[in-house]
Amino acid sequence: MSNKQNKVNGEAREGALGYKQAKLKAEKSDLWKLRHTAEHVLHQAVKELYPSIQLAMGPATEDGFYFDFDGGEVKISAEDFPKIEAKMQEIIDLDLPMIEKEITVGAARELFAGNPYKLEWVDTIETKGEMVTIYWSGEPGSQRATVDLCAGPHVASTGQVKAFKLLSVAGAYWHGDEKNKMLTRIYGTAFFSQKELDKHLEMLAEAEKRNHHRIGKQMELFEIFPEIGQGLPVWLPKGYAMRRAIEDYMIWLERKYGYAHILTPHINRNVLFKKSGHLDFYADSMYPPIEFDDEKYYLKPMNCPAGMMVYKRKPRSYKDLPLKLGELGTVYRYEKSGELHGLQRVRGMTQNDAHIFCTAAQLKDQFREVMEMLDIFYKDVGFDKYTFRLSLSDPKDDKYSFCGSRKDWEKMENTMREILDEAGVEYESIVGDAAFYGPKLDVQAVNVFGKEDSISTIQVDFNLPERFELEYVNSDGQKERPFVIHRALVGSFERFFAFLIEHHAGKFPLWYAPVQVKLLPITDRNVTYAQKIVAQLLDKNIRVELDDRSETLSAKIRDAQLEQVPYMAVVGDKEMQDDLVAVRARDGQKQEVMGVLEFVEKLQIEVQKRK
Amino acid sequence: MSNKQNKVNGEAREGALGYKQAKLKAEKSDLWKLRHTAEHVLHQAVKELYPSIQLAMGPATEDGFYFDFDGGEVKISAEDFPKIEAKMQEIIDLDLPMIEKEITVGAARELFAGNPYKLEWVDTIETKGEMVTIYWSGEPGSQRATVDLCAGPHVASTGQVKAFKLLSVAGAYWHGDEKNKMLTRIYGTAFFSQKELDKHLEMLAEAEKRNHHRIGKQMELFEIFPEIGQGLPVWLPKGYAMRRAIEDYMIWLERKYGYAHILTPHINRNVLFKKSGHLDFYADSMYPPIEFDDEKYYLKPMNCPAGMMVYKRKPRSYKDLPLKLGELGTVYRYEKSGELHGLQRVRGMTQNDAHIFCTAAQLKDQFREVMEMLDIFYKDVGFDKYTFRLSLSDPKDDKYSFCGSRKDWEKMENTMREILDEAGVEYESIVGDAAFYGPKLDVQAVNVFGKEDSISTIQVDFNLPERFELEYVNSDGQKERPFVIHRALVGSFERFFAFLIEHHAGKFPLWYAPVQVKLLPITDRNVTYAQKIVAQLLDKNIRVELDDRSETLSAKIRDAQLEQVPYMAVVGDKEMQDDLVAVRARDGQKQEVMGVLEFVEKLQIEVQKRK
Repeated sequence: MSNKQNKVNGEAREGALGYKQAKLKAEKSDLWKLRHTAEHVLHQAVKELYPSIQLAMGPATEDGFYFDFDGGEVKISAEDFPKIEAKMQEIIDLDLPMIEKEITVGAARELFAGNPYKLEWVDTIETKGEMVTIYWSGEPGSQRATVDLCAGPHVASTGQVKAFKLLSVAGAYWHGDEKNKMLTRIYGTAFFSQKELDKHLEMLAEAEKRNHHRIGKQMELFEIFPEIGQGLPVWLPKGYAMRRAIEDYMIWLERKYGYAHILTPHINRNVLFKKSGHLDFYADSMYPPIEFDDEKYYLKPMNCPAGMMVYKRKPRSYKDLPLKLGELGTVYRYEKSGELHGLQRVRGMTQNDAHIFCTAAQLKDQFREVMEMLDIFYKDVGFDKYTFRLSLSDPKDDKYSFCGSRKDWEKMENTMREILDEAGVEYESIVGDAAFYGPKLDVQAVNVFGKEDSISTIQVDFNLPERFELEYVNSDGQKERPFVIHRALVGSFERFFAFLIEHHAGKFPLWYAPVQVKLLPITDRNVTYAQKIVAQLLDKNIRVELDDRSETLSAKIRDAQLEQVPYMAVVGDKEMQDDLVAVRARDGQKQEVMGVLEFVEKLQIEVQKRK
Repeated sequence: MSNKQNKVNGEAREGALGYKQAKLKAEKSDLWKLRHTAEHVLHQAVKELYPSIQLAMGPATEDGFYFDFDGGEVKISAEDFPKIEAKMQEIIDLDLPMIEKEITVGAARELFAGNPYKLEWVDTIETKGEMVTIYWSGEPGSQRATVDLCAGPHVASTGQVKAFKLLSVAGAYWHGDEKNKMLTRIYGTAFFSQKELDKHLEMLAEAEKRNHHRIGKQMELFEIFPEIGQGLPVWLPKGYAMRRAIEDYMIWLERKYGYAHILTPHINRNVLFKKSGHLDFYADSMYPPIEFDDEKYYLKPMNCPAGMMVYKRKPRSYKDLPLKLGELGTVYRYEKSGELHGLQRVRGMTQNDAHIFCTAAQLKDQFREVMEMLDIFYKDVGFDKYTFRLSLSDPKDDKYSFCGSRKDWEKMENTMREILDEAGVEYESIVGDAAFYGPKLDVQAVNVFGKEDSISTIQVDFNLPERFELEYVNSDGQKERPFVIHRALVGSFERFFAFLIEHHAGKFPLWYAPVQVKLLPITDRNVTYAQKIVAQLLDKNIRVELDDRSETLSAKIRDAQLEQVPYMAVVGDKEMQDDLVAVRARDGQKQEVMGVLEFVEKLQIEVQKRK
């Protein structure tokens, strides 16, 4: 099960469609030009305030702009933003015209002499044999005029930047490569009106509230320890409780659809990855091998190769197909440290993986069945903000990134389009983003900061069956090659949880809430009774906590509400006497008094209904 | 959570108590001497039949004897056993006396000239400055007399071998090291009477029936693929279904006892294992590191270091203790390929691990609570053949294998003895087999072939809290160090399943049977009704299969019985008409007709009662 990685550098991950496409789209927009100009205003302001710094580079982005510079001894923090913003406003008020010029490489070298970053870009332009494009802010030669190596486009003058704000400052490696020098990066955003800026800032504040990293820490769902490793999250008790609930649900759902589950080791021999093609097509995402007993073993980046072996372990007949093998498989993929982000981009992830082995005639039905399960799953977890993306091969790149013949790729890609069109599914097509073994349909979601990522995937594969020489005997007694559908409904638990946490802002449905019920004894003399109920609920697989602190009931209720616990069960002397609980929902103001068994039943029914 | 590995060579694993101790015990027995003599009879017979072979070495073992030789061009298979056994009987009938002699190293070199295996042993004896002991079968110089390098002891003459049998032939590396030459090993056994031999052979036949490797293959529970890696079993659908049932049970049981569960990555940074002491004390069992981004990462051989980090992530108070953190953690440990055996000895295993962080005052109660859970767990899985073993440090070896001060070790070992004595638990004490960080109580089981292994473990640790500087604030506001109890009730799922499969011979209790119910439609026209019931059962988390082959009912029943499925649900026209199932238990002859919902309820109650 794969999300094929872009082979290009880190920046390609910016935005939803890959950097190049995003840029192409964005460059057409006036907003992008405005932000590009705002970025020039920023670096002009910084350079005027701190003449000793070296300007490196900076682009406009989907939602603003940033600028990298080499500060040397100069350290800039968010405390300096008011001063920088004031200087920027000054430059905007001057309404400097943005003037494009083309000059020779030689002239550019002279103009940017002493700045290694600019000169490096000039060298690159020279190898292409192009002229160098520069942009002046202000008439060249005038008092405040500043120049930068830049291909544009820009708005006509700095005065058009009607509203802007600096947002944050961070370290960033030159070219995103940790082997290079760490530069200082200032982020900001700009709009044509203050109103639009205010709206955006409000969105950012909301995003910060929903940020899964922040909620994950506050609710103690997961944590990343530098001593254990970057990109290797630890699931804390509350996060694991949620994950286990969704794991159990997935196994239940998949069994209902005829899946059986396997579990394969985290390291596999190199011969397996040679056979599967991973060492030829996917090595960039794999970790170096572990060598012992004169053998090389690799951390598996995908569960597929071992899954193929399970199919191949005995003769299969058409009567066995479709054969649906699921695996909650943990895979390890290399990501540059700069790309890692909470649970969204990690180096170790557990997929809700499955391989469906089927005949050509079953392919469409099986694909549709997966689409149906996808729909049930998303409804049950309460996640509805997604779109579909069809990732296709790049005919120009078939030697390096995609295995198998062009003819087969085209046939399969057409089949997928047919299936989707027949099902009336809307999707966007992206050339060059297929898995190396076949085209895929990805489910895309956008996080609170506007970053898009794949959360589920369905892939059709005609290459691994060929490489592993998979066979089945058809009804005529002849041997045939099966097809394989790779699919992960949850995608990876890590990434899916990132989106799920942000989507629900920590207010999870009862069925997978980390703590489903909080027992709140009114006084210390009700604690023993509360403990008895806790034991009863635990016995029925309800996740429950007891708040036995010597606090007032209202304090306990407030804290349970802050923790977003779906139900509070208050017990005082009256409840104790009659074997009752006073139940209060997370959002409600009302308490409903009921018997303990009745409460258990209520919970079980709601869990079963995926409330 | 550890089973400390012996640092000595492979042979040390032979037998229950380590080779040396087993040998010491066994040497006192007449049976051992008899088998030792039988081994000499074997190599004499082989040498007489195949003069070109080189004799290497061979011992008596707990249950027989074996002999290794370098056959060169000569290939011996089990088909040659009758011929070899006849020759052995001839040597026994000659009643050759077993005569011990001491000779000089020089004389030994002359005597064994041309045999590199014997000469290597002579070299070893020379370095110790000892005389060489040899054994003659027959008066030296007499016609059939044979000599071997051997320290004895033996019975008086070959005629005392009253009953023997050759059992198998296999390849074995010289010194058990895969870098050396592969020799041929013949296994056999011997007794003082034919009756005893017959009894033993009967036991072996029963063992073969229960052999988890054979049942695992036949029932499709697990498989080891050479392409994936030795010692890295793949859990097939039926094995994983069982494992998942026991995992779910463990989480349920542990939550009832106040545990919370975490999940930590399979690779951890080297700094973590440096801190924990694993790189100093446990490196022999660890795989070489994976190096990237100028960091070394190791496959974790234990879950403890990451578990310590989770404790340490925030300030802890005495009110938080005992803190019980469980983890279904998969660890990877190096074992020589010659040591690997099915699920019993593997290289990757999932532990039902937990760390209990507690105060000194809580230690005894917590230890007792774990013993209580152990008892419940063993009763629920229906496993009752185990003994306890207290593994202590070796005072003579504290520099190399055990971290921390002697005084602390003695104190902790005495505490453990007290707990066990107070609880009235019988146990055997083994010096030198503790974990490197503390003493442990292991639960031992013996497999069908008489091999003993640890299946559960409870360990007390005062070293890792020190190394990780763990703290809690006591009721006086002072900082104190907690203790840690490491425990794994299931031990590793792999090894526990090896014992469980053999114990039940594949006839598993309903609650974790891979398939709980098999639907048997009497005719093809009942298949749709059967499918409806399958869907109902799956919805209620019952593991069910449908036998929709066009076979007779009696054939379907026979096959379901062979597969040891606890319940068969037969459905014909009558059942279809009235929404009924005819239920038949695995062992029973009777069928009980009941409503489908009644059947579901019956199953749910029995699963809950761990039937």
